[in-house]
Amino acid sequence: MSQFLAGVDLGGTSIKAALANGTGEIFVSDSVPTESHAGPVAVIERIAALVRRLISQGGNIGSLAGIGVGIPGLVDVSTGTTQFLPNMPTQWRNVPVAALLRERLGCPVWLLNDVRTATLGELRYGHGKASPRLTMAFFSIGTGIGGGVAIDGQLRLGPLGAAGELGHQTILPDGPRCGCGNRGCLEALASGPAIIGEGVRLLRNGLAPRLHELVDGNADRVTPREMLIAANAGDELVREALIQAATYIGIAAANVVTILHPELIVLGGGVAELGDILITPVRRVIQDRVGMFPTDHVRVESSQLGDRAGLAGAIALAQENIAISGVSGSHTRSN
Amino acid sequence: MSQFLAGVDLGGTSIKAALANGTGEIFVSDSVPTESHAGPVAVIERIAALVRRLISQGGNIGSLAGIGVGIPGLVDVSTGTTQFLPNMPTQWRNVPVAALLRERLGCPVWLLNDVRTATLGELRYGHGKASPRLTMAFFSIGTGIGGGVAIDGQLRLGPLGAAGELGHQTILPDGPRCGCGNRGCLEALASGPAIIGEGVRLLRNGLAPRLHELVDGNADRVTPREMLIAANAGDELVREALIQAATYIGIAAANVVTILHPELIVLGGGVAELGDILITPVRRVIQDRVGMFPTDHVRVESSQLGDRAGLAGAIALAQENIAISGVSGSHTRSN
Repeated sequence: MSQFLAGVDLGGTSIKAALANGTGEIFVSDSVPTESHAGPVAVIERIAALVRRLISQGGNIGSLAGIGVGIPGLVDVSTGTTQFLPNMPTQWRNVPVAALLRERLGCPVWLLNDVRTATLGELRYGHGKASPRLTMAFFSIGTGIGGGVAIDGQLRLGPLGAAGELGHQTILPDGPRCGCGNRGCLEALASGPAIIGEGVRLLRNGLAPRLHELVDGNADRVTPREMLIAANAGDELVREALIQAATYIGIAAANVVTILHPELIVLGGGVAELGDILITPVRRVIQDRVGMFPTDHVRVESSQLGDRAGLAGAIALAQENIAISGVSGSHTRSN
Repeated sequence: MSQFLAGVDLGGTSIKAALANGTGEIFVSDSVPTESHAGPVAVIERIAALVRRLISQGGNIGSLAGIGVGIPGLVDVSTGTTQFLPNMPTQWRNVPVAALLRERLGCPVWLLNDVRTATLGELRYGHGKASPRLTMAFFSIGTGIGGGVAIDGQLRLGPLGAAGELGHQTILPDGPRCGCGNRGCLEALASGPAIIGEGVRLLRNGLAPRLHELVDGNADRVTPREMLIAANAGDELVREALIQAATYIGIAAANVVTILHPELIVLGGGVAELGDILITPVRRVIQDRVGMFPTDHVRVESSQLGDRAGLAGAIALAQENIAISGVSGSHTRSN
């Protein structure tokens, strides 16, 4: 009987899941609300129910060989246990998600931080598909700024799976407080909320007339996308705010270049959908700040998979662990 | 007949060289002034003469299997050609040092940036000796700040051998101009000259009475070491200047932790000999800035090899290339 894989992308608001064949081709996927307030066990039941439903939809597809799960926070990849999930209720600390899912679905389960999972997706099925030895840094810019790093085609996890937190580089040592407790992290300067905060400030000070029209003067309706529309309609200070955020991302990217000299820097996450207004300054800042080093081969691109990177990476996570472990344990993989 | 290896550490003021057996044990070493003003070919003759002299001193030691050379700047590791040597005269650009040395000494020659070479030395013969899979970042703090990164026991070079330039991370985006053209690089804030500049400022403003006594009021005699003595004798502002430099190094180290999560950060180079007054703040800044991530296992230590790291690394460079290439080409190795 043939085997297939499942990938799960656990988010604060929705659970996405997909089934794929052994080569990673997704043949069915769906999502349900997370309802994280109900607690970890209830959410794990929801994940299991979603996977079971996809399997029943799939017809006679063989046996489930393994599941990769992207988790919004830090996880102990060796034990499949959550550590710190900043956007989930506190009872999510130290939950043995891999073991609980394995009990319910009867196959090995591997966990990984959600942005490292998306990085793996981009590496195996997006920009890195044709480059098995790619060195790449992935910035996921949304409510927070997450990241992931692949070196010579291998995702870098570090001893506890915490490598790749590109959003917590210090960009301004005395800058605004970040959710992590540090000051001046990239996340505190260029995440969606940081960008919106600057838009709202301009709105309230009467410095963004086009934005004011667009959102009817309602600060709650300011988004990075509305800000881009306002900038394109003539709000120069709104444009500058977007470029300033991109400049901070560029500094973080330039720092990654000095340390790793990757061939590719990928901007993903919802905010990255703004496109050129972010990418162009990032490219310029890299040239300005580390152009004395050979950087011509360092490309900066938008994510190729967009919001599909997480599920693609969860499938890849299962694939790679099965290849490593021969489908034995529910907790392998470290690098 | 047995084989041996040579290592060369080319600096702006001196050339060091050593011979070692196949296991990397150095049995003879010496140094001569570089006299870089005489031009690349003359310097290459001096290197060759030094190696020949060491060989003649070594007695009947077999045949020279290969030479590793640490170069103060950027080199194209695949061709063995210099690219940009900031502290050498301009005619050092695009010099095929490997080929010129091979002509003279009749064996394969491999080049590598000097601090990456020292990193390799620390990795194979210093802190990393018993840890074949060590992930480590090496800061060399002297006239400039160089660096190197090893991942899972392998030195990271990047496509052009330029990875690991830890001194050119941006720490203060609007900070002082760096020699590289960028603003606010770590090198512009915490290198020997940057630290001395702060000491001289305090001296001239009458804010460093102990330092004034120590150097007889002569700004030219201010060094990081004199500053440490003055700080220990009671010059509080001099102490603060040293701790401020260490704090900048700590921010750069914390950034490396977010990206790579290494097990070890090594401080080397002349300024690192100041010891605890640098290391303690670096450890504290890592805890303060990225302590929400698991960092208990990230150690910060002084270089174990000190100024011998460069030669040890040059020997290791020859060893590893011979292992990879079977002593064929004069230009291999990329990762």
